[in-house]
Amino acid sequence: MRAFLDPRQTKHNPQSFLVLGQQRVSPEQPERITRLKAGAEAAGCVFEAPEDAGIAQIAAIHTSEYLSFLQTIHGRWQALDGASDEVIPNIHARARTDSYPTSPVGQAGYHQADTACPIGAHTWDAAYWSAQSAIGGARALGEEECAYVLSRPPGHHAYHDQAGGFCFLNNAAIAAQDLQEQGARVAILDVDVHHGNGTQGIFETRSDVLTVSIHADPDAFYPFYWGHAHERGIGDGLGANLNIPLPRGTQDDAYLEALAHALQRIQGFGCDAVVVALGLDTSIDDPFQGFAVTDQGFARIGAAIAAMGLPTLYVQEGGYMSDALGPNLTQVLIAAQG
Amino acid sequence: MRAFLDPRQTKHNPQSFLVLGQQRVSPEQPERITRLKAGAEAAGCVFEAPEDAGIAQIAAIHTSEYLSFLQTIHGRWQALDGASDEVIPNIHARARTDSYPTSPVGQAGYHQADTACPIGAHTWDAAYWSAQSAIGGARALGEEECAYVLSRPPGHHAYHDQAGGFCFLNNAAIAAQDLQEQGARVAILDVDVHHGNGTQGIFETRSDVLTVSIHADPDAFYPFYWGHAHERGIGDGLGANLNIPLPRGTQDDAYLEALAHALQRIQGFGCDAVVVALGLDTSIDDPFQGFAVTDQGFARIGAAIAAMGLPTLYVQEGGYMSDALGPNLTQVLIAAQG
Repeated sequence: MRAFLDPRQTKHNPQSFLVLGQQRVSPEQPERITRLKAGAEAAGCVFEAPEDAGIAQIAAIHTSEYLSFLQTIHGRWQALDGASDEVIPNIHARARTDSYPTSPVGQAGYHQADTACPIGAHTWDAAYWSAQSAIGGARALGEEECAYVLSRPPGHHAYHDQAGGFCFLNNAAIAAQDLQEQGARVAILDVDVHHGNGTQGIFETRSDVLTVSIHADPDAFYPFYWGHAHERGIGDGLGANLNIPLPRGTQDDAYLEALAHALQRIQGFGCDAVVVALGLDTSIDDPFQGFAVTDQGFARIGAAIAAMGLPTLYVQEGGYMSDALGPNLTQVLIAAQG
Repeated sequence: MRAFLDPRQTKHNPQSFLVLGQQRVSPEQPERITRLKAGAEAAGCVFEAPEDAGIAQIAAIHTSEYLSFLQTIHGRWQALDGASDEVIPNIHARARTDSYPTSPVGQAGYHQADTACPIGAHTWDAAYWSAQSAIGGARALGEEECAYVLSRPPGHHAYHDQAGGFCFLNNAAIAAQDLQEQGARVAILDVDVHHGNGTQGIFETRSDVLTVSIHADPDAFYPFYWGHAHERGIGDGLGANLNIPLPRGTQDDAYLEALAHALQRIQGFGCDAVVVALGLDTSIDDPFQGFAVTDQGFARIGAAIAAMGLPTLYVQEGGYMSDALGPNLTQVLIAAQG
């Protein structure tokens, strides 16, 4: 199975993470790459570095203001007297306005939804190559039945103009858009324990890409404001978004039942390709403790997706430090290959 | 001159203030009350504690969800494992949604726009009495030509459902609404160095209350997203909001020229009463270093407002720790009394 990763993706090393008013070290550490790579290789993945497809496919999803912000903000922030090493927002707009803020502090709050997406010196480079890996995976899918992208930093909380929750560029959305431009009708299935709010936001007004997310109920879980069942898309996109929120502590059987419902909708959409936003933080061993999916459950998830018989691109999302992280991935990817 | 202050207003003692990614102690300290009270007394103010007019006049401006949040969040936050003493948001909604968040973390990000409005054990009590002082002032205005409210914590960054920038309840808006219900046609003149975004947001769809703000250009100054000249009100309120952004470092003469323009608009509105959202952080000595208004400039500001000959309620907003804080207030209030 072909797999994609660029060494520059390790350079993003976020330190800050404000939780309940306390500064903590971010759980989205470069070490995740080591563990996930080993897990994928144990399933027979052979990694390659992606070609540089350029900025165009990224700009098909993200605004030019936002891309310019990501590329320049660290240096501009550093030039401010007394600034921290990482760019961390401290004020937010309660709505998008018709005035684009010009100052670094104003732009930070406009383009960063929360304090869990600090921007360091190497963040842009790592996010850029994470997205390029996703594009590499999308292009491999023309010849392969499935492929894996070790896209880290992850992407599904990133909107077209906003970072959030460890995410900067929406790798799954970029891959889906690339597949669509190759002529495929695409669905995105997000199995991360957190709702894929950025992905939903990017496609919510479109009917040509189906977005489906299974996640912990946002009433008591990040991202709090989105992921409810009644969010079904907007305007032309109405009906092309499906949210399946589940209670905290959901175990294998209940999860697989929800997945069957999601896959039924995807098959009904008549798509030619599926992008799986593959969070592994549903694991019973994950530090976020959202769901309680076991190693065996991950094998069943991979098998259920594979049983659709559709070309499938697995794009890594969350899944944090535990001894189960690599093995969980191994289970999904072995099952994915039948 | 009658003046209003309740001793419970000193109980709010904010510690946290995230600036450029660094935790600092909030500049909105209880000590401000001591200095402002001395400054007002030097101008002949005689302080009294307000009566308790109840929650109704506060609820005329703020939503029940938000008031419930302010009253209960500290205890609910404290019950979370590992929570900081103060409630500090770490995720924000990029827009208001049709789902109201139920968890403390989700509600914090929904009702707190930034990290500069931490909520401690006594915040609600202090904010409540700050608002009661404003109502007391509004009711005194029926018999007096002018009155002063030492409303601290301040209010003009607070929306109907959101705290921000040291503010929780919008004292000036609450006073204006109370005056209106007494039968007056009211204008709010905000002379704080920061744009009165909460006040604008509360009244922007209404034509019956004129809001005018003179402030440092939000392109490079808090609150960044609002306060531009093109924001003139929405729908029925179009034309009933005037923003006059001025460059950093603006001095007395340029400030007084902008003020003359603002006062002309207020007189054209045909109002019976004016609420002055009296920030003193335009001072050349203020730590925020936005404008460079001198002690003499403050006297001219007070005189210009008084020259309109309208009943005027001075409601304290910003103005931070410097030796000029009390004397600046003295100048305004002496001039206000002719």
